[in-house]
Amino acid sequence: MFMNSAPAKKHLTRSIEKPRDIVPSGTVSATDRGFLYGDGLFETIAVQSNCPLLLDLHLNRLADGCERLDIPIDVTKARKAVLKACTDVELGVVRVSLTRGQGGEGYRPPVNAHPNLIVSTRPWPNRFTANQEQGIETGLSDVQLSCQPLLAGLKHMNRLEQVMARLHSPKAWPEVIMTNASREVIEGSFSNIFLLDPKGELITPDLSSCGVSGVIRKTVINLANDERRPVVVRNVRISELLSATELFFTNSLIGVWPIRKFEGKIFAVNFAREMHAKLQSISAVIDA
Amino acid sequence: MFMNSAPAKKHLTRSIEKPRDIVPSGTVSATDRGFLYGDGLFETIAVQSNCPLLLDLHLNRLADGCERLDIPIDVTKARKAVLKACTDVELGVVRVSLTRGQGGEGYRPPVNAHPNLIVSTRPWPNRFTANQEQGIETGLSDVQLSCQPLLAGLKHMNRLEQVMARLHSPKAWPEVIMTNASREVIEGSFSNIFLLDPKGELITPDLSSCGVSGVIRKTVINLANDERRPVVVRNVRISELLSATELFFTNSLIGVWPIRKFEGKIFAVNFAREMHAKLQSISAVIDA
Repeated sequence: MFMNSAPAKKHLTRSIEKPRDIVPSGTVSATDRGFLYGDGLFETIAVQSNCPLLLDLHLNRLADGCERLDIPIDVTKARKAVLKACTDVELGVVRVSLTRGQGGEGYRPPVNAHPNLIVSTRPWPNRFTANQEQGIETGLSDVQLSCQPLLAGLKHMNRLEQVMARLHSPKAWPEVIMTNASREVIEGSFSNIFLLDPKGELITPDLSSCGVSGVIRKTVINLANDERRPVVVRNVRISELLSATELFFTNSLIGVWPIRKFEGKIFAVNFAREMHAKLQSISAVIDA
Repeated sequence: MFMNSAPAKKHLTRSIEKPRDIVPSGTVSATDRGFLYGDGLFETIAVQSNCPLLLDLHLNRLADGCERLDIPIDVTKARKAVLKACTDVELGVVRVSLTRGQGGEGYRPPVNAHPNLIVSTRPWPNRFTANQEQGIETGLSDVQLSCQPLLAGLKHMNRLEQVMARLHSPKAWPEVIMTNASREVIEGSFSNIFLLDPKGELITPDLSSCGVSGVIRKTVINLANDERRPVVVRNVRISELLSATELFFTNSLIGVWPIRKFEGKIFAVNFAREMHAKLQSISAVIDA
């Protein structure tokens, strides 16, 4: 684990930078806005044979998020830091956090932010494989996602809703389905969700009001498009889950988890397994 | 600035505690859930003559928040840590953060959380006094607060909406008024709001769907009740702001800021100034 300070892209020409607190490796300043307010973004990336999978897609999402939150980012520096952290990782996970750094007046950000880039690695969580193969049982979370179009799609550091969803969900469900207050299906607590309907149409919820726009979600959409199976992105009602042929969760670490059982109904897992295998074949997910 | 680790209240009888990372003063571990997910709560308290003002109200709110988020808290230890931090503070601010600590599986909290208590002090922000005396100009934020009853009222560490509100608001407005998506008035970005209507009724928005339940808001409500001027807590429409006789913001650092100007209209500031003076007289706010 190591830390790095990314100079503001906008201010690369500044000859004098304010001195920043030096903090030891593996820690952040208690006055970092990421800690104080969750004022930052992060990416969680699978690493295989020293290679962070789908790194460009992750960095693009991070940069898009920075644009929306007005946090400067030096993408080249971020890429180098991630690659350096993965040098001796055969199988693992790398997390990249980019916060707005320190300063400002309370919630008001400083005019010239000096963002803080934190890159850390951890071992691969082996508990995923069985879920990929056998599929999981899941249910609806009783925590409903709030609607905030300004933050929708972003993988930002304000994740209390997801924490509450996991806190309140049965241990027997490795993932839960989250809706908004109108009971429209949005995503899992740490993943996106897809439905295969009886006509063979692939559907995933619209994320313009809430949810995280996942890198594997995007990759699945692209793969399906390549195979002339366009994915319909739209609002999804809870009742549609029960009438689907297959349901599955996706994210960068789990790849695809088929949903085998939901509200007493048993679902097929064939399409989901095929999709996971395709993602493995293009090295989009871990082949563990 | 110093740090402290609060053992879980629930687990005070545990004879063996898991070892925790030792992190230097003024920093937090990059794997603390407060940093990773904003999984924690905080209080910002004014300090005068080594005394944190309204400490019991702040600690009560913190404990209520811990109850709702299922984070264990040792209130006695927290109180001691705050008082120790204020030992040599003549005039300043103390922030108490309580996070869920480390561990868990992703968003899922650990079964036995070892919360992390961080107490830090900073100098008094002198820019407040003129606003208290003269009142401020304000306007509506274009950032709308999302509705999340599970988190409403809490001073939790997920504050991106407030950061965005301050990022997008004019510098000439020391505070902004925030609404929900239904354009009901909720609060300021770092304060609560009160309306004095032409009949002399004091009104403050209901916070059961969003907003932070402020310690000074509660104190103003109690003061008004003592004077047989009951405060009506209810939904407030934007149009009601313009028909009010007075408007004012409250929080633990600013005390009362009268709103002198909003959408071109000039408001009286008498009641708000009186309320600030009353708060000073009961040592609820800084007498600077």
